[in-house]
Amino acid sequence: MGLQVPLLNDVSQGIKGNLNLITDVSGVKVGQITINDGDVHTGVTAILPHTGNMFRSKVPAASYVINGFGKSVGLVQIDELGTIETPIVLTNTFGVGTAINALTKRMLTQNIEIGDTTSTVNPVVAECNDGDVSNIRKMYLSEDDVYSALDAAADQFEEGAVGAGRGMMCYDLKGGIGSSSRIVKIDDQHQYTVGALVMTNYGYLTDFVVNGASVGQPLAQMLAADKEKEEKGSIITILATDAPLNSRQLKRMAKRATVGINRTGGFIGNGSGEIVFAFSTTNLVEHFSENQFDKVIRFNDNKIDLFFRATAAAVDESVLSSLVHAKSIVDRKGRLRLSLIDAAKKLEESQPRYTDMLDIMFKQLGVAK
Amino acid sequence: MGLQVPLLNDVSQGIKGNLNLITDVSGVKVGQITINDGDVHTGVTAILPHTGNMFRSKVPAASYVINGFGKSVGLVQIDELGTIETPIVLTNTFGVGTAINALTKRMLTQNIEIGDTTSTVNPVVAECNDGDVSNIRKMYLSEDDVYSALDAAADQFEEGAVGAGRGMMCYDLKGGIGSSSRIVKIDDQHQYTVGALVMTNYGYLTDFVVNGASVGQPLAQMLAADKEKEEKGSIITILATDAPLNSRQLKRMAKRATVGINRTGGFIGNGSGEIVFAFSTTNLVEHFSENQFDKVIRFNDNKIDLFFRATAAAVDESVLSSLVHAKSIVDRKGRLRLSLIDAAKKLEESQPRYTDMLDIMFKQLGVAK
Amino acid sequence: MGLQVPLLNDVSQGIKGNLNLITDVSGVKVGQITINDGDVHTGVTAILPHTGNMFRSKVPAASYVINGFGKSVGLVQIDELGTIETPIVLTNTFGVGTAINALTKRMLTQNIEIGDTTSTVNPVVAECNDGDVSNIRKMYLSEDDVYSALDAAADQFEEGAVGAGRGMMCYDLKGGIGSSSRIVKIDDQHQYTVGALVMTNYGYLTDFVVNGASVGQPLAQMLAADKEKEEKGSIITILATDAPLNSRQLKRMAKRATVGINRTGGFIGNGSGEIVFAFSTTNLVEHFSENQFDKVIRFNDNKIDLFFRATAAAVDESVLSSLVHAKSIVDRKGRLRLSLIDAAKKLEESQPRYTDMLDIMFKQLGVAK
Amino acid sequence: MGLQVPLLNDVSQGIKGNLNLITDVSGVKVGQITINDGDVHTGVTAILPHTGNMFRSKVPAASYVINGFGKSVGLVQIDELGTIETPIVLTNTFGVGTAINALTKRMLTQNIEIGDTTSTVNPVVAECNDGDVSNIRKMYLSEDDVYSALDAAADQFEEGAVGAGRGMMCYDLKGGIGSSSRIVKIDDQHQYTVGALVMTNYGYLTDFVVNGASVGQPLAQMLAADKEKEEKGSIITILATDAPLNSRQLKRMAKRATVGINRTGGFIGNGSGEIVFAFSTTNLVEHFSENQFDKVIRFNDNKIDLFFRATAAAVDESVLSSLVHAKSIVDRKGRLRLSLIDAAKKLEESQPRYTDMLDIMFKQLGVAK
Repeated sequence: MGLQVPLLNDVSQGIKGNLNLITDVSGVKVGQITINDGDVHTGVTAILPHTGNMFRSKVPAASYVINGFGKSVGLVQIDELGTIETPIVLTNTFGVGTAINALTKRMLTQNIEIGDTTSTVNPVVAECNDGDVSNIRKMYLSEDDVYSALDAAADQFEEGAVGAGRGMMCYDLKGGIGSSSRIVKIDDQHQYTVGALVMTNYGYLTDFVVNGASVGQPLAQMLAADKEKEEKGSIITILATDAPLNSRQLKRMAKRATVGINRTGGFIGNGSGEIVFAFSTTNLVEHFSENQFDKVIRFNDNKIDLFFRATAAAVDESVLSSLVHAKSIVDRKGRLRLSLIDAAKKLEESQPRYTDMLDIMFKQLGVAK
Repeated sequence: MGLQVPLLNDVSQGIKGNLNLITDVSGVKVGQITINDGDVHTGVTAILPHTGNMFRSKVPAASYVINGFGKSVGLVQIDELGTIETPIVLTNTFGVGTAINALTKRMLTQNIEIGDTTSTVNPVVAECNDGDVSNIRKMYLSEDDVYSALDAAADQFEEGAVGAGRGMMCYDLKGGIGSSSRIVKIDDQHQYTVGALVMTNYGYLTDFVVNGASVGQPLAQMLAADKEKEEKGSIITILATDAPLNSRQLKRMAKRATVGINRTGGFIGNGSGEIVFAFSTTNLVEHFSENQFDKVIRFNDNKIDLFFRATAAAVDESVLSSLVHAKSIVDRKGRLRLSLIDAAKKLEESQPRYTDMLDIMFKQLGVAK
Repeated sequence: MGLQVPLLNDVSQGIKGNLNLITDVSGVKVGQITINDGDVHTGVTAILPHTGNMFRSKVPAASYVINGFGKSVGLVQIDELGTIETPIVLTNTFGVGTAINALTKRMLTQNIEIGDTTSTVNPVVAECNDGDVSNIRKMYLSEDDVYSALDAAADQFEEGAVGAGRGMMCYDLKGGIGSSSRIVKIDDQHQYTVGALVMTNYGYLTDFVVNGASVGQPLAQMLAADKEKEEKGSIITILATDAPLNSRQLKRMAKRATVGINRTGGFIGNGSGEIVFAFSTTNLVEHFSENQFDKVIRFNDNKIDLFFRATAAAVDESVLSSLVHAKSIVDRKGRLRLSLIDAAKKLEESQPRYTDMLDIMFKQLGVAK
Repeated sequence: MGLQVPLLNDVSQGIKGNLNLITDVSGVKVGQITINDGDVHTGVTAILPHTGNMFRSKVPAASYVINGFGKSVGLVQIDELGTIETPIVLTNTFGVGTAINALTKRMLTQNIEIGDTTSTVNPVVAECNDGDVSNIRKMYLSEDDVYSALDAAADQFEEGAVGAGRGMMCYDLKGGIGSSSRIVKIDDQHQYTVGALVMTNYGYLTDFVVNGASVGQPLAQMLAADKEKEEKGSIITILATDAPLNSRQLKRMAKRATVGINRTGGFIGNGSGEIVFAFSTTNLVEHFSENQFDKVIRFNDNKIDLFFRATAAAVDESVLSSLVHAKSIVDRKGRLRLSLIDAAKKLEESQPRYTDMLDIMFKQLGVAK
């Protein structure tokens, strides 16, 4: 007869944006390319804070390292200057070098002053290790792949085992790219959007939770998932908002990504590189400013909890969304790696007593079985 | 017929120590004094990493700031030197100055060299704002109160609305002091204990979760708890272990306190000062060392997840334990502030459909209604 | 014929403010009390960012820990929220508790809402260990002493062995309080002031440098200063500006205090707690703001070097100023502790070949022998 | 008659190692390749903490960001785990991506488990912008160049305008690679080495100081160096020691690099990315450890000042050494960029009154004019 408990962490909490994607933040675009070639299953996901000249018009930004077992780049300068000046590129761990090269070349093409009459540029690249599914050792990624992702940037984009998420595993299920958004109403006149995009590649199935329900436990039992295996995963979170948050406030917001991640069962494992980037599309910083002073809107921290709650909810849902949208895949060793939906169906078939729980889960996740 | 969902965050997960208290870590003692005088409801809780001379034999330690809206002291030096050299004193926000004075005097008495022939001493004091329940403006705490708490240090100690937790509110219910412990088995020969003690004074009732069940929502509805009120709370976490973790590893462990806190419904609110101190009772650092080199045991990070999981579980249970043990209180303005148990009983009486949920909760929490 | 080398670190570099004190930053006041009672030589120096209600109108601020062997308080919240909401009180290490109490009471008196209808308050207190000169173990400081310093706040204040600097030793000479200021011209329309105040209590005489000249070496030889002794000192730096720097920029500026300190011969010794607080008197943050948004002026980092240079110069000169103004003192053990000027005179008498060097030094330092 | 002032910051202070290079730390090797092709003047400098399998036997390590206007990579994981697991590669800013790729491939070749049965690997690459001298926009560097540098690793290596330092400018003079070392004697039985290697590409000529003498001022006047130009430089510092310092202590030591840099006239300019990496060749961390516990030697912080002083001296001398060894170069625009020695000779010819100062400088720097 099932679950009678109201679920706090209901991913439906809060008001969602139109697309329920990070691109609900006006001006933000996402482009992806998915690569499947033999035992290689990887790709690129690019997040563009805006489609203008990012180097000339930088976005206020912050990064936050939840757990630093990771190889993402760009954080040092973001922390110092509080800005991001390139698109953010996600890919696999061994694609970072190539992504830096491509991103740099793209910026050089757009800006003839870089490295000549003005400073260099700080490429932002984040990564997870998809080596469990894909032959990461081949270092397959090309600069053209990165350009393709950048060029594909649009409001609409696919979630699941696509783009940089192609080879990612989350809670021992097929992970990948997930996204969500929330509307934040400060008062009658001020309404903003918080968007999240995650690349999920971490966690143990036995820990997996949906809205408080430990869906992962019966799944883990069924699949005999190994709790003791070495974690080699990670989760990257990108947060966007059109609210006038400065770099200090964006860092505070970035910290709250951990709340959303942990609501799905994470515990910040040793091997899980958990890194967050947050930016605002407001109060841009001009590289070639004629004067030294701008007038900007400053938001008072008193009501910043609204952004913290929106972040937790959007990240929680983004993680679940990556799982819900991912499809099963055959990995580099020929093993079938189940999606959440396929695993749930299998569980339901073999153990009908979980039907109610799964029905509720799917309803909450907004998907048909 | 009730809850059929297995609960991941079951606070019973893991093996608990004998007392299920931080004092399960050998040598650690806790002493408290509870103050009730008119509209003042406050106190002191002291954690002694060991009962020897703390200044002469410092413990490896780390602090971690989850959210820095707080006035705890001692962190600067802990971060630099990786040691704690005094007992840790918890009290209310406006008792910090007095606690520093008392702790300093106690250390001066024990060590005639301090401030004369050797350096000074770094008192560690953490605080929450109990001003919602207690007249904090009276600055009632005396140095003798601090001595009393220090002198009361023992293996056994009370939890709930006692000691420094006397006036604290958690999830709009009566909070206070909670504690728990977990056993960590590395291999056949190495077994350690992780102990947690929390002072809980944060959160919104509507967010409150027990093992994944949103117990807080019906309670909040019943009590018409105000979700929009300004958060003025905080949570302090003390972690102890006898494992040979160094300051870098202790800081990593301290970070995972946030997992336990958030499992109970926290989202790291703006006004919630969330600060963690962690120490090891192994590999002590001698102040007056004759030689410059020690041989110490170093633990490899490869299996540190065992400590991270133990931390998350022990902190989760400690928060719940503070609520389960706290009794209702009449606050400084004459308002009755309900304990979790009293609130749950009231809910059950008025809305019998929650009986099953509450039965399960109480069973999980290990308390009789 | 003497020194023909132009001196880069000439403390006269840059344009100084009218008073060449931190109080050249409009609105900033400094008050002090000096205590001499038997073997106690200590005091309080209070810096008021403005003389209005600091809690209601907070200043943008940052702290920076150069070396964390210290017990200063308030940093956790400054780092999180980017504001200071009380005067800054400097005193000896064991006066911190009492200073917190006094500062809290003063704020409570001014603000009846604190701890009642709104949050608590974050007292900022910084310290050095004057135990070499003063009997610090007596914990002599009273809350009234702190009030006296706060009440004495004015534009003009004494430098040298006064206030909190009464018992401090710097480079084995008499140290104390020093201050300086620099004018920063951004363009024709924008001119700002950077003010510094230091409490100096660190360093080895043999390392002491004035404008590049190693004045400390002959002095150390003459005085047989012990290079191997345990450093128990510290240096606290307060930076003020009326420029619209935000907390990120103020933290960057605070970091550059180390340049000024090191120009005088510092090397950031293990035992030297080197802590910096920086604030701006512009773009105040209202505690009880009616709306959630302010319009503020934002300064572009492109020309921030002007502030970095001003900071280095003002801190360099402040350290020297503390030494130049301090007078010799008989310490708690009856030992005469020489001022720089007395030591220099003694050197000149015994070794006339240093006359030219000392003449130049005194001229540069702007003092008559 | 010249300079009679004893110079504190005499780079000859302390006992130097045999080679006075970072390779005096036993096991450390340095390899370089220098590239000159048309308007491209760049290269690679690789520092190998040891010549065994770095991934299997990691070195305890720390990084420290003095000023984060830079694009160096690897810091996130170093900070979390306290180890470095690859050689450290220095190159120009736009070579970072290629250096990551090459370093990764080299590690993959050495370790068939990486990305297959165990985790990935964290390449450490640091950079400065040599775009003032070299056509950095061509992104000329190839992976083979990186291999060549790695393969050239030896005890002996060139300093000056070579390797990654080929195109670097320091204090408006020709900069590049410099190195130095110091012996640290703890007691009769324990003696260690601290080695430094810097890549210098920062600073304004007017600020340049040698041992306290502002050599830069007359040089700047002669060369009409532009103090107001935009700083686009940086300085990377690598510190090595065989002392058993752990990651916390190495971070403390890394911080002191700033003392050495500033002694030569640095003020941590806005555009100067100043990043430090420090590692110990003792207490290695095995990737595939059979057991979870090691016995290691721990060094007490009480005498850590010896390492701090050695660091300051070695970094100071390394910066000067980079200048002394660099030769004049014709840059990408055909401009002659003077070396320190050529500039000094020119100054002496035109203004003989500086002869004494320059004589002293050259003597101190240990070079013949």
